[in-house]
Amino acid sequence: MAIRNFIIRVLDYNYYHHAMENIVTEKKAEESHRQDSADLLIFIMLLTLTILTIWLFKHRRFRFLHETGLAMIYGVLVGVVLRYGIHVPRDISNATLSCPVNASPATLLINVSGKFYEYTLKGEINANEVDDVQDNEMLRKVTFDPEVFFNILLPPIIFHAGYSLKRRHFFRNMGSILAYAFLGTVISCFVIGLLMYGCVMLMKQVGQLDGDFFFTDCLFFGAIVSATDPVTVLAIFNELQVDVDLYALLFGESVLNDAVAVVLSSSIVAYQPQGDNSHTFEVMAMLKSFGMFLGVFSGSFALGVATGVFTFTKLRDFPLLETALFFLMSWSTFLLAEACGFTGVVAVLFCGITQAHYTFNNLSPDSQDRTKQLFELLNFLAENFIFSYMGLTLFTFQNHVFNPMFIVGAFVAVFLGRAANIYPLSFLLNLGRRNKIRSNFQHMMMFAGLRGAMTFALSIRDTATYARQMMFSTTLLVVFFTVWICGGGTTQMLSCQRIRYLSNPLLGNMLHRTALVGVDSDQDNSRRSTKHESAWLFRIWYNFDHNYLKPILTHSGPPLTATLPPCCGPLARILTSPQAYENECQLKDDDSDLILTDGDINLTYGDITVSTDASGAHTSSGPAFAGGATSDDLDRELTYGDHELVMRGTRLVLPMDDSEPPFTDPHHRLRM
Amino acid sequence: MAIRNFIIRVLDYNYYHHAMENIVTEKKAEESHRQDSADLLIFIMLLTLTILTIWLFKHRRFRFLHETGLAMIYGVLVGVVLRYGIHVPRDISNATLSCPVNASPATLLINVSGKFYEYTLKGEINANEVDDVQDNEMLRKVTFDPEVFFNILLPPIIFHAGYSLKRRHFFRNMGSILAYAFLGTVISCFVIGLLMYGCVMLMKQVGQLDGDFFFTDCLFFGAIVSATDPVTVLAIFNELQVDVDLYALLFGESVLNDAVAVVLSSSIVAYQPQGDNSHTFEVMAMLKSFGMFLGVFSGSFALGVATGVFTFTKLRDFPLLETALFFLMSWSTFLLAEACGFTGVVAVLFCGITQAHYTFNNLSPDSQDRTKQLFELLNFLAENFIFSYMGLTLFTFQNHVFNPMFIVGAFVAVFLGRAANIYPLSFLLNLGRRNKIRSNFQHMMMFAGLRGAMTFALSIRDTATYARQMMFSTTLLVVFFTVWICGGGTTQMLSCQRIRYLSNPLLGNMLHRTALVGVDSDQDNSRRSTKHESAWLFRIWYNFDHNYLKPILTHSGPPLTATLPPCCGPLARILTSPQAYENECQLKDDDSDLILTDGDINLTYGDITVSTDASGAHTSSGPAFAGGATSDDLDRELTYGDHELVMRGTRLVLPMDDSEPPFTDPHHRLRM
Repeated sequence: MAIRNFIIRVLDYNYYHHAMENIVTEKKAEESHRQDSADLLIFIMLLTLTILTIWLFKHRRFRFLHETGLAMIYGVLVGVVLRYGIHVPRDISNATLSCPVNASPATLLINVSGKFYEYTLKGEINANEVDDVQDNEMLRKVTFDPEVFFNILLPPIIFHAGYSLKRRHFFRNMGSILAYAFLGTVISCFVIGLLMYGCVMLMKQVGQLDGDFFFTDCLFFGAIVSATDPVTVLAIFNELQVDVDLYALLFGESVLNDAVAVVLSSSIVAYQPQGDNSHTFEVMAMLKSFGMFLGVFSGSFALGVATGVFTFTKLRDFPLLETALFFLMSWSTFLLAEACGFTGVVAVLFCGITQAHYTFNNLSPDSQDRTKQLFELLNFLAENFIFSYMGLTLFTFQNHVFNPMFIVGAFVAVFLGRAANIYPLSFLLNLGRRNKIRSNFQHMMMFAGLRGAMTFALSIRDTATYARQMMFSTTLLVVFFTVWICGGGTTQMLSCQRIRYLSNPLLGNMLHRTALVGVDSDQDNSRRSTKHESAWLFRIWYNFDHNYLKPILTHSGPPLTATLPPCCGPLARILTSPQAYENECQLKDDDSDLILTDGDINLTYGDITVSTDASGAHTSSGPAFAGGATSDDLDRELTYGDHELVMRGTRLVLPMDDSEPPFTDPHHRLRM
Repeated sequence: MAIRNFIIRVLDYNYYHHAMENIVTEKKAEESHRQDSADLLIFIMLLTLTILTIWLFKHRRFRFLHETGLAMIYGVLVGVVLRYGIHVPRDISNATLSCPVNASPATLLINVSGKFYEYTLKGEINANEVDDVQDNEMLRKVTFDPEVFFNILLPPIIFHAGYSLKRRHFFRNMGSILAYAFLGTVISCFVIGLLMYGCVMLMKQVGQLDGDFFFTDCLFFGAIVSATDPVTVLAIFNELQVDVDLYALLFGESVLNDAVAVVLSSSIVAYQPQGDNSHTFEVMAMLKSFGMFLGVFSGSFALGVATGVFTFTKLRDFPLLETALFFLMSWSTFLLAEACGFTGVVAVLFCGITQAHYTFNNLSPDSQDRTKQLFELLNFLAENFIFSYMGLTLFTFQNHVFNPMFIVGAFVAVFLGRAANIYPLSFLLNLGRRNKIRSNFQHMMMFAGLRGAMTFALSIRDTATYARQMMFSTTLLVVFFTVWICGGGTTQMLSCQRIRYLSNPLLGNMLHRTALVGVDSDQDNSRRSTKHESAWLFRIWYNFDHNYLKPILTHSGPPLTATLPPCCGPLARILTSPQAYENECQLKDDDSDLILTDGDINLTYGDITVSTDASGAHTSSGPAFAGGATSDDLDRELTYGDHELVMRGTRLVLPMDDSEPPFTDPHHRLRM
C-alpha cells in the first residue's frame, strides 16, 4: 500500500469566523444556494431569449439560422461574459497540510473535533489549473456534471425522435437506413480513426503532441463524430416540405446512428487487451469488444421494444394517469437499460418507436395529444438547452486543448469519413433499389451530416486525459462549424442541387402543425403504390404486423378471429380486444402506420393537390393512391379532413412567394 | 485559528488495485452510475405502481385511501425492504489518518502524487452512525439532497395550486382566506410553539431530552407544522362536489398558508439576538425577523405578480414556443426570487395566480390546453413522488429521533393549534360575513387540516441538530397520521357533519374533467348574486380589474376607450389590444374570472338544475343568476355547453347511489 504525500488546501470563504459556526454554515449554504439559482437563471434566460428570437425569425421568415444555431450563439456570448466580464475577487485563505494518504477514494470522512463530515469526490483538477481554482469557482459552477446530458437531456430528445419517426417512409426505406446507420457509421468511424491516427503520428513527428494519444483514442474520436444530428436540416426540410424519401433517409439514419455511435464508443472504450502494454492490437480483445457491441445493442433493442410493447394502458378514462404512466414507462426503460448495463439511449429509442406503433393506438385521444405535446416540449427544451450549453462551454470549459494541426486533420477526416459512408453505400444500395437514391440526394445527405447533441454529450462525458480534452475541443469546433455553416446553407444547397421545395414557409408551418412533412418531388411517385413496389421484406413484415401484432397489442386492426386460421379460434378470441370487434366495420383497412393517420392521408391527398397545382403535370397519382386504400376509406378520410383541405386549397391558389398571407393576425404587426 | 485533530477515513472499494488506475476509476464510475439508475428506478416503479393502484381505486370507486396516502404506503413498504431486506456485504478498508486541520470547508483539494482531486462537502454524519457508514451506503444513496424538494418538486406543486385556484370563489372569500392564512397561521405557529416549549421543559425535568431544544426551535416546529396541505381532502371534495365556498376556503387557506409558513420559518431561523447567549428573547431581533417576514413576503409577492403580469405572449402562431416560454417564465420567477434572497415558493404561487388571471387569456387555445395539462402532469408526478419519498424516509432516514413524549405533545399541540386558528377566527369572521361560516363547515376545516408536502420539505431541509432530527421524525408521524386518518375519513366526516354531496363519483369525475367543482348546498344561494352581496373591497377590486387591468394586460375585456374617461382617449387607444376591439361585441360582460369561463357558467346553470332535480324546492335561482349576466350571454353559454348539460341531465335522473352507470366501457371489466 503506497502511502503518498497528501496535501489539503482549504477553500473557505469565512475562514476567521469561528463563533456561531452553525450560523456561518447556514449562511454559507444559503449563499451557495443563491448562487446556484442565479446560475440556473442564466440558462433559463438564455432559453427564453432563444425562444423569443426564434419567434422573431419565424415571424419574419428568416431561415439562415436555426434555433439550435441561435442557442449556440447566445451560449457563446454568455460564455464570453462569464469568462472575461465577471471577476469576483474573493478572500480565500489556503491551508496546505500534508499527511500520508493513499489513492483518491470516492468518499472521504473527516472528523473535526467530534463532528464527522462526509466529502465526495468531484473530480480531478488539472495540475496547472490548481492555482486558478478560486478564480474559476464561478466558471466551474456553471459547468454541469456531464452525466446530466446522458441521464436527463438526451433521453427525451432520442425518445421524441423515435416517437415521431415517420414510420411508413421509414419502414419503406428501412434497408437503406439500416445500411447507412450500421455499416455507414462503422465505416465512418474507422476511416476517421485511421486518418486521425495518421494525423497524430505526424504530430508526434513534428513534436506538436504533449501527451499520449493511442489508436483506441483515435477510433473513439471516430465513433463520437460519426453520430450525425441533422436537426437543423430536418427542421428546414420540414418547413420547406422537401422530398419525403430524402427526409426519411436522413432522419432515420441520424436517429439510428446516434444509437450505433453510443454503443460503438462504449465498445471501443471497453477494448482492453490483456498484458502490460495496454494499447497494442489483440484479436481476442477486439472480438470481445465486437461481441459487446452486439450484446449491448441487441439487449437495449430488446428491452426497449419489450417495454414499448408491454405498456398496456387501460386507463382510458383518466388521461392524466395515462399520460403519467406513459411518461414513466419511457423513463424507466432508460433507467432499466442503464441499470442492466445496456445503453439507455438505444433502449429509449426503440421504446419510442414501438410505443408510437402500438401503445399509441391504445391511448385515449386526449392522451395522444398530451403525450405528443409533452414529448415535443421536453425535446424542444432539452435540445435548446444542450446547444446553448455547447456555446457556453467554448469559453467556460477549463481544460480546452486547441491544437491547430489536430483540428485541421479532424475536419478533413470528418469530411472524408462522411463521404466514405454516403457515396459507396449509395452506389451499392442503388444496385438493389427500384427507387434510386439520385446523386443530388447523395450530395444533400453528405452535406446534411451535421454533428450535434449526441457528439457533444459523448465527448464531454470524459475529459480526464489530454487526448480526451483535445478531442472535446475539436468536437466542439466541428459541431459549431457544421451547425452554422451546413445548417445555415441548407436552403442554398437545396436550390443548388435542384431539389424541389415549396418556398412559402407559412404553409410549411401549417403542415408542420398537423405533423405533415414533405411534398413528393415530381419524379418520385413510388410512394403512392407502396404495396406494389416495396421490398418483399417490408411486405412480409407489414402483413404480419397488421394481421397479428396489431390486433394482439392494440385495440386497432382486424380482429384475430378474422386473420388467424379457424383452428386457432378460441385463442384468437382471447387475444382480441373487445374494441376490435366494435371497430371491425370501420377499420377494414385502416393503415395506422402513422401517428396521425387521418392527418397523413390528408397529406397524401393534399400532396397530390399541391403537386398538381404546382406543376400541372401529374397524372397517375389519383388511381395509384386509390389502390392503397379502399374507396370508402378514402371518402371517410376526406370528410374527416375537409376543413384542412379547404384551408390548404385556399392557400395554394396563392403564388408561391413570400408575400404576407391575408389571414395573418394584424395585431402581431401592430403591437410589436 | 484553532488547529484541531483531523481524521480521514477512506472508503475505497477497490483499494488494492493500483495497476490500471484509470480503468478502475472508470469501472467504479460505471458501477456507481448503474447503482444510481437502479435507485431512481425504484422511485419510478413506486410511482408506476401508485398510478396503477389509483386507477384501480378510481375504477372501483374506493374512496378511503387517496393517491397520496397510497404513495406513502408503497414508500413505507419499499423503505422496509431497503432497510431490512437488502444487505450488501462490502469489502471496505479504512485508513484512519490524523493531521491538523481547521473547520470543515465546503471544498477540499487533495493532492495525490501530483494529481489534484476535488472533494465537496456532502454533510455531517451522526457520530454514532459513523461505524455504520459502509452498511448504510445503500440507504444513503436513496436519500436525496433536501434542496431537491425546494428547487425541483415544490415549485410545480405550488404553481399548479396558484394556477388552478378557483378565482371567483377565491376572491369572494378573500377576506376570510387571508385571515385564516395569515393570522391563523401565525396564531397556530405560536400556540404550537408555546405548547411544545412547555412539553420540552417537562421533558427536560423528566430527563427525556438528550440535546438542546430552544424556544426558537419550538417556534420553528410550530411554523412548519402550520402549513396545511389538504390535497387528499380537496380531491375528495372535487369528486363529491362538496360546497364551493367550503372548497374555496380550504383550498385558498392551504395554498396561502404554505407561503406564509415558508416565510415564517425562515424568519424564525433568522431570529438571531446579538451577544453571547444566542437564545434569549430580544425585541430588536424579533422586530428584525418580523421586518424580514414582511420584506420577503411582499418582495416575493411583487416579483411573482410582476413576472405573471409581464409574461406577455404574442407567439400565438406557435403553441410550442408559447408553452415553452410560459413554462420557463414560471420557473425563472422561482429562480429569480431565490437568487434575490426572496422565497421562490411564494413568488411562484403569486406568479401562478397572476398568470391564470391575465396571461392565460393571451394564450392561444392550443397553448391554454397545453399549459394546463403540463402543469397538471408535473404537479401529479411531483406530489406523488414527494409522498412516496416520505414513506420511504420513515425507514431509510439515518438519524431518526423518536421521542414518545415529544410525539404525544406534538399531536396535542397540532390539534390545539388548528383549533386556535379555526374557531376564534371563524367567530370573528362571522361577525362581518353575510354568508356565515356554519359550525359544520368549521368542524370540517378543523378536520381537514392535513399536513403534507410543504411540512415535509421544510422539516427535511435541515436535520443537522438533535432538535431538528426529533422534529423531522415527529413531523413525519404527523403527516402520516393526518393523511391516512383524516384524509381517509373525509367522506365519513362529511356525512357526519351533514354537508351535502353527490354520492355518484363518476359524475364527479366528469365534472372534474371539465374543471367544475362543487354543488351549492340548498341554503347557500349567495353566490348567484355575487355582484349584489359581496364585500365592497371585492367589488371595487373587481371593477378596477375588469375595466382597466384586463384591457391593458390581456386581449379580453372591454377596450379601454370605453372604460376610461374621454380625456384619456389617445392613451387608451395605445394601451388597448386590437383584439379587444374585434371582440368588443361579444365580450360585453364576459365574466372571465375563471380559467374555464364557459365551463363555469355551465356549472352555475348546471348546479341550479342539479339542485332543482335533487330537492325539487328551488325557486329564485333562475332570476338571480340572470341578474349576473345579460340574457344573450346566457344564451350563448347555453348553446356552448349544451352537450355537457344534456349529459348531466341524463345522469341526474339516476338515483344517487353507486350503481354502475350504463355508459361505462364494458371492456374495462372484461379485460381486467
